[in-house]
Amino acid sequence: MSDFGLSITATDGAARTGVLTTAHGDIRTPAFMPVGTAATVKAMTPEAVAETGADILLGNTYHLMLRPGPERIAALGGLHKFMNWQKPILTDSGGFQVMSLSGLRKITDQSVTFRSHVDGAKFDLSPERAVEIQNLLGSDIVMVLDECTPFPATEPEAAASMRRSMDWAARCKAVWESPPGRGLFGIVQGGVYPDLRRESVQALTSIGFDGYAIGGLAVGEGQDAMFKVLDGTAPSLPADAPRYLMGVGKPDDIVGAIMRGVDMFDCVLPTRSGRNGQAFTRSGTVNLRNARHRDDGGPLDGDCACPACQNYSRAYLHHLVKAKEILAATLVTWHNLTFYQDMMAGARAAISAGDLQPWADGFLGQYAGDQQ
Amino acid sequence: MSDFGLSITATDGAARTGVLTTAHGDIRTPAFMPVGTAATVKAMTPEAVAETGADILLGNTYHLMLRPGPERIAALGGLHKFMNWQKPILTDSGGFQVMSLSGLRKITDQSVTFRSHVDGAKFDLSPERAVEIQNLLGSDIVMVLDECTPFPATEPEAAASMRRSMDWAARCKAVWESPPGRGLFGIVQGGVYPDLRRESVQALTSIGFDGYAIGGLAVGEGQDAMFKVLDGTAPSLPADAPRYLMGVGKPDDIVGAIMRGVDMFDCVLPTRSGRNGQAFTRSGTVNLRNARHRDDGGPLDGDCACPACQNYSRAYLHHLVKAKEILAATLVTWHNLTFYQDMMAGARAAISAGDLQPWADGFLGQYAGDQQ
Repeated sequence: MSDFGLSITATDGAARTGVLTTAHGDIRTPAFMPVGTAATVKAMTPEAVAETGADILLGNTYHLMLRPGPERIAALGGLHKFMNWQKPILTDSGGFQVMSLSGLRKITDQSVTFRSHVDGAKFDLSPERAVEIQNLLGSDIVMVLDECTPFPATEPEAAASMRRSMDWAARCKAVWESPPGRGLFGIVQGGVYPDLRRESVQALTSIGFDGYAIGGLAVGEGQDAMFKVLDGTAPSLPADAPRYLMGVGKPDDIVGAIMRGVDMFDCVLPTRSGRNGQAFTRSGTVNLRNARHRDDGGPLDGDCACPACQNYSRAYLHHLVKAKEILAATLVTWHNLTFYQDMMAGARAAISAGDLQPWADGFLGQYAGDQQ
Repeated sequence: MSDFGLSITATDGAARTGVLTTAHGDIRTPAFMPVGTAATVKAMTPEAVAETGADILLGNTYHLMLRPGPERIAALGGLHKFMNWQKPILTDSGGFQVMSLSGLRKITDQSVTFRSHVDGAKFDLSPERAVEIQNLLGSDIVMVLDECTPFPATEPEAAASMRRSMDWAARCKAVWESPPGRGLFGIVQGGVYPDLRRESVQALTSIGFDGYAIGGLAVGEGQDAMFKVLDGTAPSLPADAPRYLMGVGKPDDIVGAIMRGVDMFDCVLPTRSGRNGQAFTRSGTVNLRNARHRDDGGPLDGDCACPACQNYSRAYLHHLVKAKEILAATLVTWHNLTFYQDMMAGARAAISAGDLQPWADGFLGQYAGDQQ
């Protein structure tokens, strides 16, 4: 029996809740992972991130391989020590960011070569190197290198891309040494084509991974198409392995995906929005730049226990945003991450209680969308 | 007996240590006041500022009168509540910033008129309005409006400027209603001319204030000239009233001024430097951008208890600075403010123990200046 793995404590329909055990501690699932791109969750101390309720962070292999470099981080004691985060860390493989460098990168079956946006240095990212980098960082959850299929893609394009990703997944597994408490996740690709998604699931489960991500979504296909892919994919993944929907998403995307059996999420939305003065609240999104907040002595979200809501008025947050103060980014990010973690805690409790559907109806009904 | 005032507990030569009591609590003197320009100490939460050991903040009337406006802050419950800082606040009068708007402002004996750098709106700042604004903000320590004499200035120029400031000081006192626990400070001007400084001290003490600031220094005259003004001015100020050296300064400026009898300081240096990756340490200033920190697993300052030094390496701070991460500004500012507060605590303890000179020799000897 491995010391890495998911223990499911309750299910409700397709949804599940439980605990994912890793070398750096337990992760309550369904879990939202704040994004710590360059070894920091932007505008936040790690203590503040932990206070929001986060059990795990996501780190970006692409950014860290360019600067400060995985060998340097390893020499300094690994990513956990470097950034002072002693809870679990998942790292992506760098694939998604590298694929986005259109014109600056070259993909072959062997690897991807590209130039650094920082200093122009040339890099070569192969499946084997992606695993090596993540091992140097000391990640608890390592992702296979994949080719993120563009959207839209024809079925033959999506098929070729997915099959290359499956070859790369096998090569990642071949060099994976199963360190204790750490896991390697495969990534299902295949675009919006059910047959290709099925083929991808079969390929990955034949290889065998500690967890399964669903990739290539939230790239423009829309929520309906995304949910359709989840409906077709999640049930065919091993029930006892964690499922991770990459790069998703908006609150209603996440609630819908939880109901379809997803256990893990990451997204830059709460942090990026926080730096732009966009807040998520129980009654929808709020643009703190809006002049209607100028004289509002009330809290951003009266039901939120974060410092931004407990200690400050909307008027003050509006002032900070308008004055471009750094504290604006910190407080609104803090709130947004708290909102996301509260949503996950609500979903976990609802699954445990067997009333996920009424909870979701209530949450989504109150969360009206863009409120401004 | 007023509930605002300085209680001196020990002296050592010209230096003094004690407690300044205000409506929002006690301030240990000598005190360093972090600058919270726009109702925030840049890049810091107020909780973090308090953790550095700060007993009092400085707020800027000029910035707050433009945005969000003193009437708005008053309607929202005052500056302490607005920015969630329940300890004392000193506000400047706005004079220094307005005088710096050369070409955009017009000074008469009556007032200064200028246009907002935010939206071009026209403002009129008189001595009476400066006091009114600071009362609206709810400041514990209110500064009189003064004309900050430019440097260099001829003796006749410095005299005319100082005399206008003395008229304005009398007008501020005339509208000051001595609210309980709050104090009004006069500001000594007169440039580098001993006779003018003497005349200014005499004018202010005749009017009578709760404290006395020494203004118009650290504007290019150099440390020797500044110390000469302090030597000539501080002894003639009332011994039982707090003395505040405005806008100063570098660590060695502050230590020298404490030895000359100054009780209070403010300066943007620790916060502004923090945002630029410049750190103050016990062995001098450190530029964290420098590549020599890239692989340094050691702390920024081994004798410092702040989070930047306790939880992170120089290599990590270097990485954050190079990657322009917001956390760089937060952590280096946190360290710099801690360094300044530790320096003040060291000076207070040395005065109490009667060994200020050896403490200063040790501190300044170790603090080598620019270390890079």
